[in-house]
Amino acid sequence: MSVTLAIDSMGGDHGVIVTVPACCDFLEKHPDVRISLVGDPEKLKLALKPYSKTLIEQIQIIPASEIVLMDDPIEVALRRKKDSSMRVAIEQVKEGLADAVISSGNTGALMAISRYVLKTLDGVDRPAIATAIPNELGRGTTMLDLGANADCEPMHLLQFAQMASVMVQVVDGKDRPSIGLLNIGEEVIKGNEVVKQTAELLRASKLNFYGNVEGNDIFKGTTDIVVCDGFVGNVVLKASEGLAKMMSGLIREEFNRSLMTKIMATFAMVPLLRVRKRVDHRRYNGAVLLGLRGCVIKSHGSADRFAFGCALDRAYEAAKNKMVERIAQDFVVETKA
Amino acid sequence: MSVTLAIDSMGGDHGVIVTVPACCDFLEKHPDVRISLVGDPEKLKLALKPYSKTLIEQIQIIPASEIVLMDDPIEVALRRKKDSSMRVAIEQVKEGLADAVISSGNTGALMAISRYVLKTLDGVDRPAIATAIPNELGRGTTMLDLGANADCEPMHLLQFAQMASVMVQVVDGKDRPSIGLLNIGEEVIKGNEVVKQTAELLRASKLNFYGNVEGNDIFKGTTDIVVCDGFVGNVVLKASEGLAKMMSGLIREEFNRSLMTKIMATFAMVPLLRVRKRVDHRRYNGAVLLGLRGCVIKSHGSADRFAFGCALDRAYEAAKNKMVERIAQDFVVETKA
Repeated sequence: MSVTLAIDSMGGDHGVIVTVPACCDFLEKHPDVRISLVGDPEKLKLALKPYSKTLIEQIQIIPASEIVLMDDPIEVALRRKKDSSMRVAIEQVKEGLADAVISSGNTGALMAISRYVLKTLDGVDRPAIATAIPNELGRGTTMLDLGANADCEPMHLLQFAQMASVMVQVVDGKDRPSIGLLNIGEEVIKGNEVVKQTAELLRASKLNFYGNVEGNDIFKGTTDIVVCDGFVGNVVLKASEGLAKMMSGLIREEFNRSLMTKIMATFAMVPLLRVRKRVDHRRYNGAVLLGLRGCVIKSHGSADRFAFGCALDRAYEAAKNKMVERIAQDFVVETKA
Repeated sequence: MSVTLAIDSMGGDHGVIVTVPACCDFLEKHPDVRISLVGDPEKLKLALKPYSKTLIEQIQIIPASEIVLMDDPIEVALRRKKDSSMRVAIEQVKEGLADAVISSGNTGALMAISRYVLKTLDGVDRPAIATAIPNELGRGTTMLDLGANADCEPMHLLQFAQMASVMVQVVDGKDRPSIGLLNIGEEVIKGNEVVKQTAELLRASKLNFYGNVEGNDIFKGTTDIVVCDGFVGNVVLKASEGLAKMMSGLIREEFNRSLMTKIMATFAMVPLLRVRKRVDHRRYNGAVLLGLRGCVIKSHGSADRFAFGCALDRAYEAAKNKMVERIAQDFVVETKA
């Protein structure tokens, strides 16, 4: 099948300067894909100027007069900016004109508009945000929820596990991925009430439940999937970003301390760059909004051309392999069972 | 005043091999301090052999026939091992024979026995565990709770903030330390119900409340103190340890890849070691169990001589500056107010 991706071209910190070149890079690798660039037609045409006619034939420009800003309150994005590039792009999926939508915009707004326009799948109480986090094994640990649901019931966490399980099967091609429940100890008696009850639900489910995992297991790659509520997930993700930033900042500072250390830095460059490449969060860019009647991918707001391309790859895999349809089917089977 | 420290000499991964030399190092710096080493007298005498008579005069050996193991269930540690080095050391504080107790043993057991033996302070509903985490400013961000309380009410979080505020004033000498409430966004409307209600209590309190902070603020050092429930705190702490371990493992691996990279490593050593020193978690060893009628310090189970010494420093500062008494006083004032 041919896949069409709708892009919120104006979203994120950089807008068309990043989204358009990343889309063109992507189309060069995928001549069968079509891309709908949603946004300001003038800006889009200008950004497309350097590219060949063949490439541009795969692209359609869809006008949208407004932009959801990174600090727009959800209410403003949802109720007042009805012609935003984000919303128009999501509507492309709703109308069956695109198979997935990718946006680097405001996460809260993206989730709210997606829920409003696309609605949730039957059997799914709450959509969740999932992303892959680099681990020691050189693969990604898929973690969710990352902030869509601050308060969760055990049933919600079970559904998150169920959706992520399908997603990892579909996008990463991993059969029966293992699921860890994020907790403060491996023992069954550990944790808060919600987690204890969730463990019981997971044990009784058909999912490949490993058991409780702890914070360090995310980076060890103990399980393919780590499930937690959106409060914990968001705090852990941001704390990890903060720690990584502190570490690389300190390394930079120490190597810049004197002429001597600067010379040392030139020697250390190759291995250090290789480390950076191995844990490059850009490679893992593209969080998936799970549980909606349509495929919505959230790219990091500060994504560069390479990172946005990774989000496009993820969207393409999800759309091509009919991730949403398979989650829907999984929930229908569960409900009937 | 002269300070006496009671040491669970047998606790942790290494027992007397670490605790005794660390105590002797400490006594060399503090000729006014007395140390009670609790544990197996034979092993303790052997470990003390290399040290001078003057030093050993500052030391008292208190026999205890049992050891709480790292994987002992709390029930076993509390009910069956009544002559454990951990418990006998805590009893020294209870009986007024020591001003603080330091243990590298099992955290759950240490908290349970401390609560049982020492009891909580008037006005404190739940004791909490606080530690300092290295931040970009080169100081520590004091974070709590780190796992004692998986489920928390807003009132508990308020009390954690209150206790930590006194602790940071006393131990770090920082006047009116700022308090951040760990959340998934800075805006007042963000977060789960418990956090929203906690923010109201904190705003209405006499504490120096900064507002909501996010995961990355822990490492930025945005506030002196970060408050969260024990579930979130524990997960964040372990995730951070996991990420740091992954990063240093990868750096080691890349520098060991070939003869060439090994040569590069010798050039990069100085700045990298300096980075490690700046974020050395050993320097921040010594979590404080707050809210008890006695000063209890938890050292990391894997602490080495240097790290255990840092926990001793922390215990000494807390005891000398009468941290427990000042927390007790603060809660009395609050209750009367």
